[in-house]
Amino acid sequence: MTPYDAFRALHHRPGTPLVLPNAWDHASAAALAEAGFEAIGTTSLGVASAAGKPDATGTAREETLHLGRRLARLPLPVTVDIEGGFGADPAGVAELAADLVRAGVAGLNIEDGRPDGTLAPLAFQRELISAVKEAAPALFVNARTDTYWLPGRVDETARRLSAYQEAGADGLFVPGLQDESVIAALTAEYEAPLNILYAPGRLTVARLAALGVARVSTGSLLFRAAVQHAVDVAGTVARGEVDAVGVPEYAVADGWADAYGK
Amino acid sequence: MTPYDAFRALHHRPGTPLVLPNAWDHASAAALAEAGFEAIGTTSLGVASAAGKPDATGTAREETLHLGRRLARLPLPVTVDIEGGFGADPAGVAELAADLVRAGVAGLNIEDGRPDGTLAPLAFQRELISAVKEAAPALFVNARTDTYWLPGRVDETARRLSAYQEAGADGLFVPGLQDESVIAALTAEYEAPLNILYAPGRLTVARLAALGVARVSTGSLLFRAAVQHAVDVAGTVARGEVDAVGVPEYAVADGWADAYGK
Repeated sequence: MTPYDAFRALHHRPGTPLVLPNAWDHASAAALAEAGFEAIGTTSLGVASAAGKPDATGTAREETLHLGRRLARLPLPVTVDIEGGFGADPAGVAELAADLVRAGVAGLNIEDGRPDGTLAPLAFQRELISAVKEAAPALFVNARTDTYWLPGRVDETARRLSAYQEAGADGLFVPGLQDESVIAALTAEYEAPLNILYAPGRLTVARLAALGVARVSTGSLLFRAAVQHAVDVAGTVARGEVDAVGVPEYAVADGWADAYGK
Repeated sequence: MTPYDAFRALHHRPGTPLVLPNAWDHASAAALAEAGFEAIGTTSLGVASAAGKPDATGTAREETLHLGRRLARLPLPVTVDIEGGFGADPAGVAELAADLVRAGVAGLNIEDGRPDGTLAPLAFQRELISAVKEAAPALFVNARTDTYWLPGRVDETARRLSAYQEAGADGLFVPGLQDESVIAALTAEYEAPLNILYAPGRLTVARLAALGVARVSTGSLLFRAAVQHAVDVAGTVARGEVDAVGVPEYAVADGWADAYGK
């Protein structure tokens, strides 16, 4: 089975959603792969912030491509968040998608939220999705709508999801959505698998599974938790407090590079 | 005060060692800076592993330089771990040091351990340190000896430290050393400030301070802790357990890029 087919199949297991952790560099991806996750995504916030760039501004194109190519060498399906396509037109985004699929990337996320806080025009976003699917039919294209993240746009959700599915999207992603009845309605309505962003303290994976959700991703959560943890551990060292146990040995961490994708 | 003078001064506060946390990317460095640490180092394991490369093999030269230049824009002194100089000869390492100092980097770490598990010949290492100091006199050069990490080489420690101090090293670094009487003897013997690698559960910063240690660095500890924490949080999500509290919000994490070094 190709990584494309393997990744697609993970979205079609009723009752067992794909839990997709999002990495921001090779080490975090390799460690998550080693821990037994079935596939790895990337987090655009993490990739941008690791490079010292703000998220969702289309500035981390090179870092994203470089990381995508690197992660494609891991022995599991990898999906890459390309924000809104980094400001390119449909032809440019299609070229980027073709580049990623050649490297062995199994999927990508493409969003309609724009750096200025607006939504991309519906017709443009349809064209983007169609162009990507035409250039790289094997790619699992997860079409994200930011209607739940932008004020006053929730009512457009269904129209956008319908249009993206028609344009060829393999999956539909509505970050910010946590309303159980809306989720159940969307999973009943659309053939394309629904992706929900995990939110701490809100709906669990089990609850989302019961509502028909096919994929639960962690977005930037792991990145934020990891960096904060580094700061916390540094604080315990400085203050002479008993420090975090369970930190992997040097050789384990070196193995995140060594064992994978050399 | 220049970042070079500021960084140097942090090593000359008897009883108050510099606690130096080591970052591996821009986000971790910015978050540690925001948390109030006085200076930031880099960890060669973290930088290499983040890029999917094994540590201490001289392969992460480009990533290290790129990160060093980026971190030099942070509003605090930054010191960069250049392993053994990435396989370059003294002239090549001097060029690299000049490049870093032009970017505003305040210091660097240079080690005598080699990828094949041997120590660089003493004469060569002296030459390396002299060449760097000649090319970039402002840089705080922290000369690391790996005698405590390599089997059967402990007896060479004093000879190496003396030679490195003579060659112009501004600081001396002996990772792996945790013996109180040896530490006290070294801090009494050498004028150059002594750097010890913090080890969880071993000597505390307060104890190291009492022994005359001038700098305590965390090495790869924070990187290892951070990546493992990401895996742990992903596990709590997948298993539906109550998840880590205190994870910073999206805007905070985006601010690690936004607020610093734009």
